[in-house]
Amino acid sequence: MRSVSIIGIGQSPVGELWDRSAREIAYTAVTNAMEDAGIEDADALFVGNMLSGSLIDQEHLATLVAGYCGLYGIEAAKVEAACASGAAALRVGAMAVASGFHDVVIVAGLEKMTDTVGKDTTAGLATAADADYEALHGVTFVGLNALIMQRYMHEFDVPIDAFAGFSINAHRNGVNNPNAMFQEAIDLKSYVNAPVIATPINMMDSSPVSDGSAAVVLVPTDRVKEFTTGHHWGSVQILGSASANDTLAVHDRRDPLSLLAAQISSEKALRQAGLQREDLDFFELHDAFTIMSALSLESNGFARRGEGWRMAQEERIGIHGDLPISTMGGLKSRGHPVGATGIYQIVEAVQQLSGRAGANQIPHARIGMTQNIGGSGATIITHILGA
Amino acid sequence: MRSVSIIGIGQSPVGELWDRSAREIAYTAVTNAMEDAGIEDADALFVGNMLSGSLIDQEHLATLVAGYCGLYGIEAAKVEAACASGAAALRVGAMAVASGFHDVVIVAGLEKMTDTVGKDTTAGLATAADADYEALHGVTFVGLNALIMQRYMHEFDVPIDAFAGFSINAHRNGVNNPNAMFQEAIDLKSYVNAPVIATPINMMDSSPVSDGSAAVVLVPTDRVKEFTTGHHWGSVQILGSASANDTLAVHDRRDPLSLLAAQISSEKALRQAGLQREDLDFFELHDAFTIMSALSLESNGFARRGEGWRMAQEERIGIHGDLPISTMGGLKSRGHPVGATGIYQIVEAVQQLSGRAGANQIPHARIGMTQNIGGSGATIITHILGA
Repeated sequence: MRSVSIIGIGQSPVGELWDRSAREIAYTAVTNAMEDAGIEDADALFVGNMLSGSLIDQEHLATLVAGYCGLYGIEAAKVEAACASGAAALRVGAMAVASGFHDVVIVAGLEKMTDTVGKDTTAGLATAADADYEALHGVTFVGLNALIMQRYMHEFDVPIDAFAGFSINAHRNGVNNPNAMFQEAIDLKSYVNAPVIATPINMMDSSPVSDGSAAVVLVPTDRVKEFTTGHHWGSVQILGSASANDTLAVHDRRDPLSLLAAQISSEKALRQAGLQREDLDFFELHDAFTIMSALSLESNGFARRGEGWRMAQEERIGIHGDLPISTMGGLKSRGHPVGATGIYQIVEAVQQLSGRAGANQIPHARIGMTQNIGGSGATIITHILGA
Repeated sequence: MRSVSIIGIGQSPVGELWDRSAREIAYTAVTNAMEDAGIEDADALFVGNMLSGSLIDQEHLATLVAGYCGLYGIEAAKVEAACASGAAALRVGAMAVASGFHDVVIVAGLEKMTDTVGKDTTAGLATAADADYEALHGVTFVGLNALIMQRYMHEFDVPIDAFAGFSINAHRNGVNNPNAMFQEAIDLKSYVNAPVIATPINMMDSSPVSDGSAAVVLVPTDRVKEFTTGHHWGSVQILGSASANDTLAVHDRRDPLSLLAAQISSEKALRQAGLQREDLDFFELHDAFTIMSALSLESNGFARRGEGWRMAQEERIGIHGDLPISTMGGLKSRGHPVGATGIYQIVEAVQQLSGRAGANQIPHARIGMTQNIGGSGATIITHILGA
């Protein structure tokens, strides 16, 4: 198997981009990534996206984006795995290069969630859950996460403000990310006073509805030198990549407070990389809701069951902590354009690993892990990246 | 690059399956393919699907199907490229095996187009076109193909009944396919009397709205023997695989009567296989509309520009003709569950190449080509399979 490296990254700002259509948002990310890589053409474009069929009446999305970016006669396909669509697309891109099917592959994540005339974004997000056995009964996607959080608080006797540290950390980091949707700090008071969306989830527990696109350029590691001569910044290698599934419906899980697919995929990815958890300099986790941050830390073995929130409370997750998370603002502050998020995580990890993370730079970051979650834990994809 | 082979195929009947949900239809195809392959587990499931977000409020589809088939802890992702989603998913499965990411991969195609309460199937299909510059102006997907057909008839001075031979051939072959949606023959009179949908396309020019699922099991060719001992039927090798894109909107093409992406992808796939067009024993083409059959024969070099319809009129496309097409009924008679069609084509090609095509068996079939078209030619994917 050929090893795969990232030689270019690009991103659009994240936010409510009412004046920009999906193709325009993707154009920014794709062309920035191509410029960062120093390439003018590619063999394939894979686009991670969840909601273009539900919200903007546009399937055939990858072909649309390829054409808008001037890329013709190449392979183009969309990859979907709910909110894990970005990382799922990265895996397809990595397989394309590793197999030798292609040499230069662009992988973009893209979501357009505003300006969706006559559509229901909440109903769109619920398509990540089981349509017949969860959504049909009226539970929203926030509602499902609220049920999990409620159970967690009951089971481990944890107060609501135990989760505040995750949002405070994310917003603190988002301040220095010019592409973040919310570039402002919050404090415990903002968290406690935030309006409730679905008990116990409040506005500060939940990531926002956002538009955005991020992209990376992949090449075989053994050809990196051809692309990175001159003023090029270098490259980051994909050291591990794994995806695992669990039951789509939360009620089918033996333990709704454990992300089994996180454990399986991170163990597999670390094994591929020949690394241990202790070797990681940071962890871009999927903080769509604060409860997901707690469960992610626990299920990946960084904290004991029921104690993930303590890592936030003890301030161990900051840029200078033992395990920095959400280093560019995470889903909460950078924003969560669902199908794009997995690629934003990769782009931000590459920023850290190439010393381009600005004020949020983790000193001497060499190895990072990203984890992208689809649904309430039914698809979890882990990547290990190394400078 | 590891060579990839198919060791199992499965399919559900195609039709208006009002009493069966998407997951149930996929279950039939996936479990039949696993049984045909003699496997009880897999490393990954990729699902080609176009419309689950638009029509059945279900994204995260591959993970849903994996779980319903009892497959956990594996990779699952949906792949979308409009009506070429099936072949796009096959390519992802092939890359997964060729790269060494996985050893045993199931690729399914799945579409549920009936029982879509409160949804508009015509609007769903239009998401294959450019939402902002084609669909927004009211053109349907049938309408786009009608414009192309109208232009063809004008340009080459061809009468409407020139296209009848494609439908007659497809229906003749569908009679012997127990999974075909329409198992009845038609004649020139049925064609001429068929009601018009969008001038000049009539009911007999157009493939139907259908539900269905088909699946294949892929393994590395060098491991085929481990799986095909005993009573197993054998295997079929993927000799060539290529995908090419063109402009999404028809009005952006230099020549709307030429499928440039068909030419690019078939030339590439044949080159990979080290074969010529003359080596092909059959061609499963994408006869969503009779005009697409004519353009496919022309763009792939089997007929001169403006003369593809003559191959049907001269009866050269039957099971015993020079170039059999739509050998199990094609999209017209077997049916066109859009995201599943690309995999039905592969399953049917494997039936031919393994001597399991029953009354429609092409004598001594050794090499076949399949071609799956997304939109009105914006994504075209070609596979060459060999016994």
